[in-house]
Amino acid sequence: MHPYRTHSCAALRASDAGQTARLSGWVHSKRDHGGLLFIDLRDNAGITQIVIPSGADVLETAERVRVESVITVTGEVVLREDGTRNPQLATGDIEVRAREITVQSMAAVLPFQVAGHESYPEDLRLKYRYIDLRREKMHRNIMLRSNVITSLRRRMIDLGFTEFQTPILTASSPEGARDFLVPARLHPGKFYALPQAPQQFKQLAMVAGFDRYFQIAPCFRDEAARADRSPGEFYQLDFEMAFATQEEVFATLEPVMEGIFTEFGGGRVVSAAPFTRIPYAEAMAVYGSDKPDLRNPLRITDVTVPFAGSGFGLFARIAADGGQVRAIPAPGAGDRPRGFFDKLNGWARENGAGGLGYIIFDEDGGKGPIAKNLEADRVSAIREACGLKAGDAVFFAAGKGDEVAKFSGLVRTKIATELDLIEKDAFRFCWITDFPMFERNEDTGAIDFSHNPFSMPQGGLEALNTQDPLTIKAYQYDIVCNGIELSSGAIRNHLPEVMIRAFEIAGYPESEVEARFGGMLNAFRYGAPPHGGSAPGVDRIVMLLADEPNIREVILFPLNQQGEDPMMGAPATVPPARLKELSLALDLPKPKPAATKA
Amino acid sequence: MHPYRTHSCAALRASDAGQTARLSGWVHSKRDHGGLLFIDLRDNAGITQIVIPSGADVLETAERVRVESVITVTGEVVLREDGTRNPQLATGDIEVRAREITVQSMAAVLPFQVAGHESYPEDLRLKYRYIDLRREKMHRNIMLRSNVITSLRRRMIDLGFTEFQTPILTASSPEGARDFLVPARLHPGKFYALPQAPQQFKQLAMVAGFDRYFQIAPCFRDEAARADRSPGEFYQLDFEMAFATQEEVFATLEPVMEGIFTEFGGGRVVSAAPFTRIPYAEAMAVYGSDKPDLRNPLRITDVTVPFAGSGFGLFARIAADGGQVRAIPAPGAGDRPRGFFDKLNGWARENGAGGLGYIIFDEDGGKGPIAKNLEADRVSAIREACGLKAGDAVFFAAGKGDEVAKFSGLVRTKIATELDLIEKDAFRFCWITDFPMFERNEDTGAIDFSHNPFSMPQGGLEALNTQDPLTIKAYQYDIVCNGIELSSGAIRNHLPEVMIRAFEIAGYPESEVEARFGGMLNAFRYGAPPHGGSAPGVDRIVMLLADEPNIREVILFPLNQQGEDPMMGAPATVPPARLKELSLALDLPKPKPAATKA
Repeated sequence: MHPYRTHSCAALRASDAGQTARLSGWVHSKRDHGGLLFIDLRDNAGITQIVIPSGADVLETAERVRVESVITVTGEVVLREDGTRNPQLATGDIEVRAREITVQSMAAVLPFQVAGHESYPEDLRLKYRYIDLRREKMHRNIMLRSNVITSLRRRMIDLGFTEFQTPILTASSPEGARDFLVPARLHPGKFYALPQAPQQFKQLAMVAGFDRYFQIAPCFRDEAARADRSPGEFYQLDFEMAFATQEEVFATLEPVMEGIFTEFGGGRVVSAAPFTRIPYAEAMAVYGSDKPDLRNPLRITDVTVPFAGSGFGLFARIAADGGQVRAIPAPGAGDRPRGFFDKLNGWARENGAGGLGYIIFDEDGGKGPIAKNLEADRVSAIREACGLKAGDAVFFAAGKGDEVAKFSGLVRTKIATELDLIEKDAFRFCWITDFPMFERNEDTGAIDFSHNPFSMPQGGLEALNTQDPLTIKAYQYDIVCNGIELSSGAIRNHLPEVMIRAFEIAGYPESEVEARFGGMLNAFRYGAPPHGGSAPGVDRIVMLLADEPNIREVILFPLNQQGEDPMMGAPATVPPARLKELSLALDLPKPKPAATKA
Repeated sequence: MHPYRTHSCAALRASDAGQTARLSGWVHSKRDHGGLLFIDLRDNAGITQIVIPSGADVLETAERVRVESVITVTGEVVLREDGTRNPQLATGDIEVRAREITVQSMAAVLPFQVAGHESYPEDLRLKYRYIDLRREKMHRNIMLRSNVITSLRRRMIDLGFTEFQTPILTASSPEGARDFLVPARLHPGKFYALPQAPQQFKQLAMVAGFDRYFQIAPCFRDEAARADRSPGEFYQLDFEMAFATQEEVFATLEPVMEGIFTEFGGGRVVSAAPFTRIPYAEAMAVYGSDKPDLRNPLRITDVTVPFAGSGFGLFARIAADGGQVRAIPAPGAGDRPRGFFDKLNGWARENGAGGLGYIIFDEDGGKGPIAKNLEADRVSAIREACGLKAGDAVFFAAGKGDEVAKFSGLVRTKIATELDLIEKDAFRFCWITDFPMFERNEDTGAIDFSHNPFSMPQGGLEALNTQDPLTIKAYQYDIVCNGIELSSGAIRNHLPEVMIRAFEIAGYPESEVEARFGGMLNAFRYGAPPHGGSAPGVDRIVMLLADEPNIREVILFPLNQQGEDPMMGAPATVPPARLKELSLALDLPKPKPAATKA
C-alpha cells in the first residue's frame, strides 16, 4: 500500500464501501459527538469524513492532533447511516473508519482559521500566505488563475501562435513607467532593467520572421500599488502578428476572450464575437469614456443645440462660449422623490461640478428648475433626441470638451447604478478604435503624442505630411470589458521614415529619436513586416472572472500594497560587502530633523 | 483579397496552378537567369519561388529590392516546367508569376547573410539577433525550444500538475549562488532579489495544499557564463509533489523525459522508463562520476586486491597505504600500436596523473611494463575481474578515494572516445540516488552538508541521532542524460526538528537556522505534507535535442558571455536622478594606477 494514500480526499464513493483506504491531508475540522470523534480530512481535491470510534487505539492520537495538522489515515470505507449523508460533499455517502493514524506534521496554534469564512487583516494573511491559500476561496481563485492561463495558452497555440520567452534582464525601455533596475556586478556603474513589457522584443521577433508570437509575460513596473495593479510584477497575454491588419488582430483575440470568459464565467453572459467597435470620438460622446461599460444601457446625447439661445441662461451661455451640453437619460426616474435629485446634485458638487440639472418628463412636458426656464419646444426636442417618454428624467452635464465628456460619463455610471440598470452576470466587450495620434498639450500648446508613439498613423507618411496633426488617427485600439481596459494594442509603425516624421511633429529631432530608439529603428532597416498586436492583462481577466476587486486575491504570493512580502521578508537590507561588489553605496535620505520648540 | 497574403510561403501546390495568390515575406535570394528574375520569398512557414518575366511592369521594383527586404507579391500560380521542379521544397512544383510587387520594408545592406551556412562572430550575430534568427538553424532551434516547452507543459498538465507563477521580485534565497539584487525605491536601503529558483515558493505551495505544482520557471543567478549556462537567466521545469515518495517522483518524470526526447529526438534512441537507478557510491565506483554517460559501455573495476602485495611495487604501495587501483577496460585495444598507449600516458600526465599504466592481453597472458612485474595469476585475476579476453587491454588509475574515482572516470571517457565506443544517436538516462547527507570538509575536518541541507535524511531523526553522520544518505537524487546533469531533486525535509538536528550536525546552532531559514521553518510548523520534486533544466534539454554545445544557440535573445545584450545595449548607465531616487550612489572601483618607470 502506498505510504501516504490510495485515494484523494475527493475519491471515495458508496461503491467503495468495505474497502480499506488510506488518505492523507489536513485536519480541516474536528467534532466530538458523544464518544465518536469526527475529522474532516482535506486535501487539494476535497474532503472526506473520518470517524474514530470511542475506545479505538487511534483515539488518543486523533484527540491530540490540532486542526491543520497533516495526517495519514488508514481504515475501512463504510456507508454513512441514513440521515447522516451529506449530499453537498462528493464523498458524502461514506466515511472512513480510522484504524491507523500517522501524524506527518503537527500544526501549531494557527494565526487564523482555515475553515469558515471569517475576514482577517491582509498583512496577517500575507505573512501566513501558505495558510491563507488553504482557505476555500483563495484555493479556488488560484486554481482559476492557473486554469485560465492554461486555457489561454491552448487557445493561442490552436490559433497558430508560438510562445517565446523574452529576456527579463534587459535594457531600460521607453514604455513610460518607471523601470526596476538591477545592478550589473560585472559592469560597475551599469544596470539592467526589468521589462515593463516585452514590447520591443515581440516586435523584434516579428522582424526576425516569427509570424505569430505570444507569451504569458511577466511585466515589471516600479509604480505604487492600486487595487487593480500589483506593485512590481504582473502578467499579460502578450501577442503580436506579422502581416496582420487591425481587423485581423481583433478577429484573432475575440474568440480567445469569448472562449475564456464562457469557459470560466460560470454561466454569465459573454459578448459574442465580433465585439462592438467604437471609435474613440464616439466613445467619448456617447459613453463619456474611452472605457465604456456596455452593461450600462444609458447613452449620452449632445443637446447643445436645443439649449443654444434658449431661456436657460447658464447652458445658453456655455453653448455660446463653444461649450457643450450633454444629456444623460434616467429612464423611469420621473417618480423618484425630490431627495433623489438633490442627492445626485450633491454628488455632482462633490465631484467638482457646479451641480446636476435635470428635467422630469410627464404627460404634459418637462418639469423642474431647468424646464421652467426652457421653451416647451426645446424641452420636446431634448426628449426626442434622448428617446425618452413620460415618467423618465434626464440629467445634464455642461462645459467644455473632454471635461464635460468625462463628467457626463461619471453621471452615466452614477445614474445607472442608482437606478440599478447595470446588467448583471454579464461580460460585455468592446473595442475602442481610432485613437487620435496627437493631442495638444493644454499647458504648453505643443503637439504631443496622444498614446503610443510607435503606432502606425492612419494614412501613413502622406497623412503626416499633409493633414492637421490633430485630425490624424492611429491604428491604435483598446479592448474593454465591463468598463475595464484589458489592454491597449496597435498596428505598429514599422517604417523608420514614418516614425521619424511622427516624432518630428511631436517636437523630437531625428537625432534624439535615433539616440533613444535606435535599437528598434535599426531593426526596421533590415526588412520589417507590417505587424500589430495587443496584450490583455491576465490578472485583470482573472479578477473579472473571480469577481475580485483586489488583485492580490488572484495572485499566489503577492507583494502587499507597500511592495513588501511579509512572509519572505522582502525587500531586505543586504550586507555592505554585497553592495561593494556591485560598486554601489547607500545614499539614504536624511532623516527629517525632529521638531524643535520655537 | 487580404492586403498581405492569401497563402503562406509554404502553402502552394501543383493543384493551386491557375489561381491568383498573394504572398508576403522576405527576399531570401535573387537570381537573374537571362531575362528572367527569380526571387525565393521566405516567411515563417517556408519558401516559394517568385518569377518575374523580362519586360514585366514589376521588374524594376524586383531588381531594386535588396535581399531581406519585405515584399508582397501578387500573381498567378504556375506549374514549373519539367526539370525545374524542386522536390526538396514543399512548394517546389510551382512558382508565382509576379503581377504586382509591393515593397513593405526595404532592407539596407546586411551585416551578414541570412541564406547559406557561413559562420559569423557571435557578437555580430547578437547585435543583429533579429537577422541572425532568420537563419535556418536558429529559426529551427528557437521553434524547437518553444515546441519542447509546450509539450512539457502539456505532459505535466496531463499528469495532474497545475502551473503556478511564483514571484520574481522576492527575497534573497539560500540556494548558495549569488542573487541579482533590485533596489526597492520605496524602501530606501532595501533590496529585492531575483529568485535563483522558486525552491522555497514551491515548497510553500505544497504547505498551502496545492498537490502537484509545476512551472516553466525563470531562474536568475549572478554567475559568470559557461557554455551550458547563461549569465543571468535560465529556465527550468520546476515541479513538486505532495505525499510523494522518491520512486513516485521518478515514475512521474520518467515518461515526461522519455516522451519529450522521443517526440523531438528525430529518431534517436531514448532510454525507456524506468530509467536505471545508480546509487551515488556505485556511480563513483563503476563510472568514476556522479554524472555517468551511459552511452559509454565501459565499466570500471576495483583491482586493488590483485595488486596488493604484488610485484608491481607502485600499486602495491598504494594498496598498502589504503589507496585503490581501478581498472578501465579498453576492449579490442590490444592491437593498437605503442603510440596509442604513449599518447594516453601523455594525456594522463597533462591531467595531473603520474601516467597511465596498462596491460595488453594476448593468448599467452599479459604484456607491457606492468605485466612484466606482476605475477601471472594476478594478471589473470585482473583479466577475469574486468571480463576481458585476448586482444583487449586494460588501463589503471591508482590513488586515494574521490581522486582516483574521478580520474578513473576521466580515463573511462577518454578511452571510449579514442576507441569510438560511445553509442551514437542515443539519449541514455539514469538517476543517481542515495547521495551522502554529510561529508567531511578536507580542509577543516568539520562535517558539512554534501549537497542540499533541505533534503530529508534517510532514516530521519533516528538516523541523525544514532548513526555516524558520514554514513547517512539523503533522499536526494540527480537525473542525468548522456553524462549531463539535468537536475538535482530531493524528498524534502518537512520536519522542523529534523532540520534543526541536521543543521546542528553540520555545525549550525538552532538560532542561526531560525534566523536564516525561519520563513520555511515556520511554514512547516503549521501542517506540512511530505513532499519532493526536481527541476530539469529546460535550456539543457533543448541543447541536447538540438545537439548544440552553446546555450546561446537555443535562446531567443540571450546575453553574451560578458552578460551584455549588444542589441539593446544592456546593461547601461542610468541618469544620476534615477540612482538618487533609489537612495544609491555609485562606488566605482578605483582605476588601476598607470605603470610608471622605476
